[in-house]
This record gives sequence, C-alpha cells and structure tokens, in this order.
Amino acid sequence: MGIVLGPTQYGKAECRLVRIIRGAQRHEIRDLNVSTALRGDFAAAHISGDQSRVLPTDTQKNTVYAFSKVHGVGEPEEFGLLLGRHFVNSIESVDGARITIEEFGWDRIDGHDHSFVHRGQEVRTAVVTVAGHDAWVVSGLADLVVLKSTGSEFAGFLVDEYTTLPETHDRVLATALTVQWRYSRLDVDWAPAYDDVRRLLLDAFAGTHSLALQQTLYAMGSAVLAARAEIAEIRLVAPNKHHFAVDLTPFGLDNPGEVFHAADRPYGLIEATVSRDDAPDPGPAWT
Amino acid sequence: MGIVLGPTQYGKAECRLVRIIRGAQRHEIRDLNVSTALRGDFAAAHISGDQSRVLPTDTQKNTVYAFSKVHGVGEPEEFGLLLGRHFVNSIESVDGARITIEEFGWDRIDGHDHSFVHRGQEVRTAVVTVAGHDAWVVSGLADLVVLKSTGSEFAGFLVDEYTTLPETHDRVLATALTVQWRYSRLDVDWAPAYDDVRRLLLDAFAGTHSLALQQTLYAMGSAVLAARAEIAEIRLVAPNKHHFAVDLTPFGLDNPGEVFHAADRPYGLIEATVSRDDAPDPGPAWT
Amino acid sequence: MGIVLGPTQYGKAECRLVRIIRGAQRHEIRDLNVSTALRGDFAAAHISGDQSRVLPTDTQKNTVYAFSKVHGVGEPEEFGLLLGRHFVNSIESVDGARITIEEFGWDRIDGHDHSFVHRGQEVRTAVVTVAGHDAWVVSGLADLVVLKSTGSEFAGFLVDEYTTLPETHDRVLATALTVQWRYSRLDVDWAPAYDDVRRLLLDAFAGTHSLALQQTLYAMGSAVLAARAEIAEIRLVAPNKHHFAVDLTPFGLDNPGEVFHAADRPYGLIEATVSRDDAPDPGPAWT
Amino acid sequence: MGIVLGPTQYGKAECRLVRIIRGAQRHEIRDLNVSTALRGDFAAAHISGDQSRVLPTDTQKNTVYAFSKVHGVGEPEEFGLLLGRHFVNSIESVDGARITIEEFGWDRIDGHDHSFVHRGQEVRTAVVTVAGHDAWVVSGLADLVVLKSTGSEFAGFLVDEYTTLPETHDRVLATALTVQWRYSRLDVDWAPAYDDVRRLLLDAFAGTHSLALQQTLYAMGSAVLAARAEIAEIRLVAPNKHHFAVDLTPFGLDNPGEVFHAADRPYGLIEATVSRDDAPDPGPAWT
Repeated sequence: MGIVLGPTQYGKAECRLVRIIRGAQRHEIRDLNVSTALRGDFAAAHISGDQSRVLPTDTQKNTVYAFSKVHGVGEPEEFGLLLGRHFVNSIESVDGARITIEEFGWDRIDGHDHSFVHRGQEVRTAVVTVAGHDAWVVSGLADLVVLKSTGSEFAGFLVDEYTTLPETHDRVLATALTVQWRYSRLDVDWAPAYDDVRRLLLDAFAGTHSLALQQTLYAMGSAVLAARAEIAEIRLVAPNKHHFAVDLTPFGLDNPGEVFHAADRPYGLIEATVSRDDAPDPGPAWT
Repeated sequence: MGIVLGPTQYGKAECRLVRIIRGAQRHEIRDLNVSTALRGDFAAAHISGDQSRVLPTDTQKNTVYAFSKVHGVGEPEEFGLLLGRHFVNSIESVDGARITIEEFGWDRIDGHDHSFVHRGQEVRTAVVTVAGHDAWVVSGLADLVVLKSTGSEFAGFLVDEYTTLPETHDRVLATALTVQWRYSRLDVDWAPAYDDVRRLLLDAFAGTHSLALQQTLYAMGSAVLAARAEIAEIRLVAPNKHHFAVDLTPFGLDNPGEVFHAADRPYGLIEATVSRDDAPDPGPAWT
Repeated sequence: MGIVLGPTQYGKAECRLVRIIRGAQRHEIRDLNVSTALRGDFAAAHISGDQSRVLPTDTQKNTVYAFSKVHGVGEPEEFGLLLGRHFVNSIESVDGARITIEEFGWDRIDGHDHSFVHRGQEVRTAVVTVAGHDAWVVSGLADLVVLKSTGSEFAGFLVDEYTTLPETHDRVLATALTVQWRYSRLDVDWAPAYDDVRRLLLDAFAGTHSLALQQTLYAMGSAVLAARAEIAEIRLVAPNKHHFAVDLTPFGLDNPGEVFHAADRPYGLIEATVSRDDAPDPGPAWT
Repeated sequence: MGIVLGPTQYGKAECRLVRIIRGAQRHEIRDLNVSTALRGDFAAAHISGDQSRVLPTDTQKNTVYAFSKVHGVGEPEEFGLLLGRHFVNSIESVDGARITIEEFGWDRIDGHDHSFVHRGQEVRTAVVTVAGHDAWVVSGLADLVVLKSTGSEFAGFLVDEYTTLPETHDRVLATALTVQWRYSRLDVDWAPAYDDVRRLLLDAFAGTHSLALQQTLYAMGSAVLAARAEIAEIRLVAPNKHHFAVDLTPFGLDNPGEVFHAADRPYGLIEATVSRDDAPDPGPAWT
C-alpha cells in the first residue's frame, strides 16, 4: 500500500476583466469573470515543493489581461480557446487547460456612446477545455429566472406512506435555470448561437403546458437540439422555486391562484441531460 | 440612576408575496418582499413578558397576504399605506407603523400571456411610515448598476502626506446606486413617478461629464428635484466601484483606457442628500 | 424655492487589513474590515466638481494601512479613535469622521506560534464618531447566533381577525443578534469590556425563561447596563429565526418538540433600546 | 440521428432540519441541511409528463423529517445511509439515491442544559450514494479557514514572458478549505473519525513549512491517509486567499511582513487528490 497523488489542477480564479473597445466615438464593453486552471505534470510541486514546472497563478492572471489587450476578448468561447491553447502550447509542463468564463451584460443608457446600465442577474457562461491538440466548448447561461403563473400541473404521481402532497392542475411554476450545452464543433458563430439558444429555451418554457418541471426541461433541451445541429448535448439544472398558495380561508377568503408565498428552502431540484444518440464522446469537456 | 426601555419596534420581515392578477386571458404579476414594523406601547412585553398588547408578527404576515387578496397590491407605495394605516387604526396599542417593500420586476416572455422572465438585480423600493393620522412615503431603487467608460475625471484633489493617487482625466466611473426620495404629498401617481425618476437618474448619470462621483450624484439628485415638484428630498448612496487600469508595460503593451481590473474591496462610498430649501419637515419618514 | 445640498459624507469602505504582530517567536494577528467616512465642507465637490478640499478615499485607505504599521491597531475602538481624530485634526476641510470597524477572530491551531484557524461567523464591531474635539464610541457584535431548545413561550397575545397563531408554552427560540452599546466615557479597557458584555448577553439569553423575544432582549440589555457603569445605552436587533415543529401526524407520529423546520423567511424582527435614564446625549454617535 | 434523454436526477434540496433530543434534563441538538436526489427510471416524466413513477420531492422532504423522529439523526453519514437505502429499497422506480448533508455545530452556553451558541462558519458534510445494494460514503468539511503568518514561501517557479511575480521566502498563507474523503468501508465510527481527520488537517497545515499551497495540500491529504486506514482517497479544494503586503515606502515606512491587504478576487485555486494506490474503485461515490 502506498499513498499517491491523484488528479490535480490549479489556476487563477475570478479575474474580473472589463475590456473597453474605444471606437472613434462609440465605446463597447465586455465584462468578464475569467478563471484559469492548468493540468499537467505538477507532482513535484505537491510532493517535494519543487515549483520549477509551475507557472504562477499570478502569471495566468497577467496573461488574461495582456491577451485581452492584444487580441481583444471577442466572444467568451473565443477568448477561452485563445487562453487555453496558449497555456498548453507554450508551457511544456502543461498538457491541459480549463478556462471558465462568466460574462455580464450591459445595455446602453438611451443609446449613449459610453454610458451603460447593468442588464441583470443573468450570466452567460463558457467553459473551454483544451487537452493536447484538442479542445471542447461548453456554453451556457446561469440564473435565468422564469415563471409561469398558470399552465402547470403536478398530478398522477407516485404515492407512498409519506406522501401528503395534493394533486394540482394549476400551479405557479418558477425556476432559476442553469443550462450548459456542449458543441460538437469549434467553427461556431458563438454570439448568434447563444442568443438563439436563449430564445429557444425561453420559448419552450413559455410554450409548454407543463405536467412537471421534468417535462419542461426535456422540452427545452430537445428544442435546442432540434434547432442547432452543432450542439451535441445540453444539461439543465433547475430548482423548483415553490410558490405556495396561501390559505386564506381563516379570513373568509378564497384564493383561486392569486396569492402566493414564494418559499426559499427547501426546493425541488431537477437535473436533466438531453443529447443526440450520435453525440461525439465528451472527452474532458465536463470534468 | 435607573434602567429604562427606549425606542422599540417589531414586526414581520421579508414576507415574500407573489400576487397574480388573473385577467380573462392575460395575467399580471406583482412580486414583493414586504416587511412590517409596529411602534407603540409595548413596554409590558419587554419588561414583564405581558403580550396582551402585542399583535403577533404572524398576524402581521397574515394581514399582508389577506390584504393582497382583498385590495390587490397596486403600487408598493399604495400597499404600504394601506397596511400601515390598517395597523395604526385597528390596533389600539399601535400608534405607528413602518412598511418596507421591495418590488422585483418581471417581463413577459415574447408577449406571452402568463410566462415571465425576471428582469434583473435592480429593485424598486418603498418605505411608508404612518404615525397617528399622518403618513410619509419614501420611494426608491436599489442596486441600479451603471458605468461610464469615459467622461469621468478625478483631479485637483487635496494632497497630504498619505496621498499617492495620481490625477486622472479619463477613468471608468461605475457604481451601484441606492437612491431614495421623499414625497411631500401622498396624492402621487406612483408608477409613472417612479419611471420618470429612474429615467432622470440614468440620463443625468449619462449626460454629466463627471469631475467626481460627488458631482454626478448632485447632478442626479438635482435633476430629479427640478423635474418633480412633489419630491422634497432625495438621498443617494453610491459605492465607487473602482476599475483599475491594468499596467501592461511589463509585457511591452500600453493600455490607453482599454483593460481594467474591476476590484471588489475596498471601494469609495459617497453619500449625499439633495433637498428643497423649503422642504417640509421629514418627521419620522427616514427613521 | 431652491435646490440645496444636504448632509453628505464620503470615505473608503471595507479596507481589509490584516496586521501581524511578529514577536520573537510568537505571532499575534488582528483581522479588520475598516471603513472611513469624512464629513465637512465638501459642497464645492458636489456642486461645481471642485476637489480641492477633498482628501481622496485612496488616501484614507493609505492612512489606515500606514497607521496600522506606526501605531499598531490595538483594540478596534482605539484604532477608530486614532484614525478619526487624525482626519479631523489634520485636514482643514474635515470637521467630522465616522470610522466603522469589523473584527474577525482567529484562534491558534493547537497553541501553534503562527498558525491560526478562523473563529467563525461572529463579528466584533466598533463605530467611532469624531466631531470637532469630541468623540463617541459604540461597540458591538454582529451575527451572534443563539438558540434555546426549550424555556420559551409565546401566549396571551393580542388576537384580531387575522390572527391564526396558536399559543405555545414550549417552543424553540433562536436569533442572530446584532447588538451595539454606547459608552459614556472613552477611558475604557475595551477588550475586557467587550468580553464581559458578550458573556453577559449570553448568560442572560440562557438564564431567562422567555415569555417573548422582546422580554429576552430587555433582560439582555438591562443585564449589561446593570453590570457596566460606563455603558449608557444598548441597542439590540434580533430576527426571530422561526423553528416550526413539523406536523408528523400524517405518518402516525407525534412530535413533542423534537423535529423542527428552520425557516428562512419571513422572520420576526424585534428591535429594542435599553438605556439609563441619566444617559448623556448621544450626539452623533449613532447617525 | 435522434434526441435522447441522458442522465437525470431529482430530489428535494436543503431541508433545514433541527432535531432536538430531549433528555430528562439536558437537551442535545443536531442542525442539518439535508438534500435528497433520486436516480432511476424517470424517462416518462420527462418525455410524456407521466408522473406515475415519480415520488414527489415533497414526499422526500416528509421522509427526512419523519425518519429524524423515528430513528434520530445520529451522525450525518448514518442518516444519509438510512435515507438513501430507504428510497432505493422501498420505491421500485428508484435504483439510486444521493443524500447530501451539511451539519452546523452548536456549543452549549456555559454548560447550560438547553441554550446553545452557533459554532461558526465551518460546516461538516456527508455525501452518501446508494446504488442498488451498494453504498458509498464521502465525508468532509467546508469553509475551514486557516492562516499561517509565516513559514510559507513561493520561489523557484517557472517564469515566462508574462511573469512579474517576485519570489518570496516569507508570506502569509491563508485558505478556506473544502475537503472530502471517501471511506472504503461503512462500519466506521463516524464522529471520532471526523474529529480526527479535522485535527490531522489542522496539524499538517500548522506543522508544514510550506513551499507552495500545493505542497501543503499534499501534506494534509497524506497525513490523513497515513493515519486512517478506512479512508481510500481525499480531495482538497483550496483557494489561495492572497494577503498582499502593503507598500508603505511612500510614507517612509518599511513593512517586514506586518501590514497586509486581504484581497477578495482573483484568488489562486488549487485542487488536489491524494489516494491509496490500492484504493477500491470509487463507483458513483463522487458523481
């Protein structure tokens, strides 16, 4: 029996990069949270403290900022590929890299050239994994909060001795979506693809008469796969943000789906994957 | 020398109320976080544990939900006035009430009748104070995040022995605004007033060439007072969310206002009040 | 009618200062979050953008760090007085200062000379206000979470048409205390005073058979005033963190105070002040 | 090409259970956050909305509370095994379960029988995975914040064109540890094992002269494996919470490791696994 070092990775997390593109008159803004993680032959750093193969996390941060100047950031998927390939190609001890990016949206204030208002809590995400000569891109969004005030049921479920939930044919359905989709190619026009997936998700949420959040998630995922051939797989994580109809009968009032308490915890949590049956192997795209 | 009970208040904080207005076809949604606080003669509860004059916080919560059914919620200012007056008028031991409301915005998904997407982090607020027959309304917004990528200077400041900051004539200016404004009347059309104040704040932020965040705040506040006669006073709290230009010279690169690190802490914090010189006494509106 | 600038203050918030005192062998650590705010004649900065009387918030931050080297930090009350008086005495445009400090505790790991483990969520606080030649100190603690699993009742309360809460003579009482106490003198031995107040609060919480959280707060506050002559006034803010006994009767089980759901929102919120009847005027200590 | 449902799971997240054990005189408290997730044949729920094989998440919550009454909660690992096996054994459509538990610690107030003070931010964790007749236990802790004020170096690292970091032979090393360890057996005395692992981690952190956080993590992990034969593998995630020595030279002051700015973001993030070379296959323990 011996004790051995298993998988490791290290990097600089949450580099908060704001990149201004200064046109003659009109500025553009990209607002990113960039995390790098390198994989490779770092056993000596762990076992004997020998740092000679370790590119400092401070250097990784510098690289993020310098690359944003030289190359711009473009779409987060592009910037992730650029950074990941740089580390793998230029540092001998590095054989893999994972670049994780969050992008925060800004809108112009009334069309102004250089004044912006933050769009909201929703976040666009990209996770780029480079291993040797290969690369994988997983795009996504987080904290997209949606609600249906009707058109949602939950009935016909399994009943055991601990079941007290009544069936319902009209409830509020609300969730804060985290969705990630894996591309099978890298020659994608990332920005319109993102916009389209977001629209498809919202349309499927709105357009599906829901018999369960599970069903809604599958409808959302399959709508994306049906429309976007370059996407191999989509994963959805959806807390069921319970809205409980308040019992107003003690006050002589009925409550036909009008007054709800929005609860914090506990919440249902539904996770689902929808994929193509001929999807290419994900390799290290997710892990 | 004796030990005495000083000011007290108690209530139910953060009642998360979602009110659906079910039209024939089309639903409306109001999403509120309502906190109640009652003031009055509660000394016995503190000193001897006698609860006979204490309306339970649970009852206050019930009242919030029941009133939302009977009266609707209307604008948060109206709902606050309704609740505050109810407690003061109907409970003998209560001589004052403070109702604090946050409202979260939702947009329709592509015009859909009953499907909505959460608008974002920005929050509309209302603080209603009732004391006897009088009432005060303070409306506001929180977490309105804005940024100018140019048109902001900071120079000519006081220098002492601990000053190392260089002057700048072109910087990023960003803040997360918390603004509250006190009305001098109660017969206000709350929703358009709110929309107008928000627009005035954004326009003043965008339109002011800033010599300091202090100056921008005053410009925002005075623009609101100039346009809205029913507002007596406005208070602004603005963290200066520092965006530091990254030094790229070690990499042979210049950085003419393009690459920034968005820092978390510390941050400047600027607080200002702008008022009319003939503003009516605020009474307990703020405290 | 004219528009005028009202009260303002500005400063650097949340300077995260860790100060190591390196003894010959044994290190001490003070871990602070320091916020400064200056008051004075800053109207020109707001109205015309003239910064000539404005000491930059960056300078205030530098002063925090430099003073911690030259003077040490001592107790947070001392450090606050030192900083506040410095700004008021050395900067002509400054006539008042508010220094707010949070201190985070660390314990030695097994008596080790320079290795520490973070003590927890509880925070020691100090708010120092300097105005001209005068100064006020308000010490406190935040997020001290306590719970009684019995010895708490809530009964005999006022009942109106919206009351559904049953009386109880045995419930869980839990809260996360924020407490602040104002000293009437400045020649206080701050550290033992803090430790003693904290102990008095805990003992009163534990030792009081509670007929209401209101009563417990008053017992805590008056115990502190009874024991510490240098404290003029104490303010307590206590969310009633509801623990609801779960109804297990659908499963053929009783639940005599054993199984609880710890709810998040809404929560009762009780605020109380206890003071001496001859307490000196608070001046700007709290505002 | 077809669209297919991939892996799914669903359950009730964050059931906040407080269990009081009422002895004749003295109470004990267990404070848990329990999340359940079921795996099995739920395709119909996703694809056609048929819920007949779906045990509601509400029922899962009920089961958590009811089991805590009937069986007590014991150690979180035991409670997780109990719940996980129940769902797999009693519900035909369920072939796997993942029970995730956080436990929050309380200390008695001065030895009091039923009054407690919350211990702090540190959390004990357990993740139990049941699949058919097998089960896996991963115990852990989260948010254990530790700091060394000396005895930490970072030098001899790889230098590329983006490297500006100077070497240091004396720095502050601080991190907020998330550690999880997988047991190779289930007949473990969970509470003393947890206490011992926690002590081993702290002792290794304190006792290791650190040449890098990587080295410290490996020392911590291997110390645990060396001492506890029943642990097959340990995973450590450690943000390098940077403490930057403040440059005081502009004020004529040196700073020999005394004054630090504790930065928020970005931070280094080091992840490592240490395992036995003959560790049994983890199966679904981690995924």
